[in-house]
Amino acid sequence: MIKVVFFDLDDTLVDTSRLAEMARRNAIENMVRHGLPVDFDTAYQELLELISEYGSNFSRHFDYLLRRLDLPSNPKWVAAGVIAYHNTKFAYLRTVKGVRRVLLDLQRAGYRLGIITDGDPIKQWEKILRLELDAYFDEVFISDYLGVKKPHRKIFEKALKKMGVEPGEAVMVGDRLYSDIYGAKQVGMNTVWFRYGKRADRELEYLEYADFTIENLEEVPRIVRGLSDEGEERSDKEVHAD
Amino acid sequence: MIKVVFFDLDDTLVDTSRLAEMARRNAIENMVRHGLPVDFDTAYQELLELISEYGSNFSRHFDYLLRRLDLPSNPKWVAAGVIAYHNTKFAYLRTVKGVRRVLLDLQRAGYRLGIITDGDPIKQWEKILRLELDAYFDEVFISDYLGVKKPHRKIFEKALKKMGVEPGEAVMVGDRLYSDIYGAKQVGMNTVWFRYGKRADRELEYLEYADFTIENLEEVPRIVRGLSDEGEERSDKEVHAD
Repeated sequence: MIKVVFFDLDDTLVDTSRLAEMARRNAIENMVRHGLPVDFDTAYQELLELISEYGSNFSRHFDYLLRRLDLPSNPKWVAAGVIAYHNTKFAYLRTVKGVRRVLLDLQRAGYRLGIITDGDPIKQWEKILRLELDAYFDEVFISDYLGVKKPHRKIFEKALKKMGVEPGEAVMVGDRLYSDIYGAKQVGMNTVWFRYGKRADRELEYLEYADFTIENLEEVPRIVRGLSDEGEERSDKEVHAD
Repeated sequence: MIKVVFFDLDDTLVDTSRLAEMARRNAIENMVRHGLPVDFDTAYQELLELISEYGSNFSRHFDYLLRRLDLPSNPKWVAAGVIAYHNTKFAYLRTVKGVRRVLLDLQRAGYRLGIITDGDPIKQWEKILRLELDAYFDEVFISDYLGVKKPHRKIFEKALKKMGVEPGEAVMVGDRLYSDIYGAKQVGMNTVWFRYGKRADRELEYLEYADFTIENLEEVPRIVRGLSDEGEERSDKEVHAD
């Protein structure tokens, strides 16, 4: 019997990667428009390289970009990048298609919902609150706040304990085979891999830990109901066997 | 003969203090709405105290606010504050009444324009670019970028040198008697104190350094023209005296 459904946040509930790409493109465009003496493609490729080296949450991307391009420090160009980046992030923040319908459907069917995500706690809460997703969820577990990152089993164990359920009574839905699917399966949860966005062909060596693979989030309620029915049938059989 | 007019940025060109007050009030309101277990007035007063101790550019205001209120760290409340703060700043950023008319008028009359401001260079450029003020100005001098703060004479000297004018050929307009007016007068500039906002009754011990006091920015072009005419009359007289 399933009682709780956990979701990853980035690229599962929130369309983060697509948004980040738009924001980065707009940032470079605005920097060029305000005098950055480099063509768009050169600057954009350099930014992507920088992000792959320093990570996407690095706060001095635009400063470092100028250094990498052998340009003098220039707060006007950095400000132009920052403005366009933030404007895009604010204007285009969106949930993945179907999210609200799925959450409402699960909630109406009596399942409790949680989020298990990595990342900066304040930035993650910003996305949740801006999209007004908070009302759907009973609990939000953010790794950087708890001090462990997915796929460490502790974050999944903490989540299960806080929700008061056994691993077999929980489903984890996420886009990363390693952090979400392998992580949740380690502690015995049911797992649904959402094959979506830039992670659609990554970490396939962990595919065996996915009980289900979906390409549309709207399949989640049917899968969860199926798992619940299976569980009931199994306990019916156990009763008969006695 | 006046050739250049310099303006301070915050509370002279940009209506910063009023905006900051609105943003802080909305931040606290949103934190309370998302569960901060303290009433609005208590939290708002605590925030004002914190800002007066740590300065207005401190990036961890909302985190520290929770500590001061003896509350546990909570990224959801902090995110609620950050969102409302930024939304307000983006939605309500405004120039001081009359700014664009004054700048256009001075520019048409052939004066070159500059900004001399304190503050974080990227944040100051953000305000300038968001308000599309950059096209009016030949140069922007930001103290934190140059390594000296107003009223240090070096920032005014650098500005005069870059614009290629003598101190007597320049006017400084600003809301702070100490940083703007005393600072500019030290190097021999003409000074116009814009008696506005929260600085309207502060630092009055430096009032003697103001050549003019105005309560409406739209008086600037008339004053600048008056100074130019005076200069011409004086050089006419000098010519006659030869």
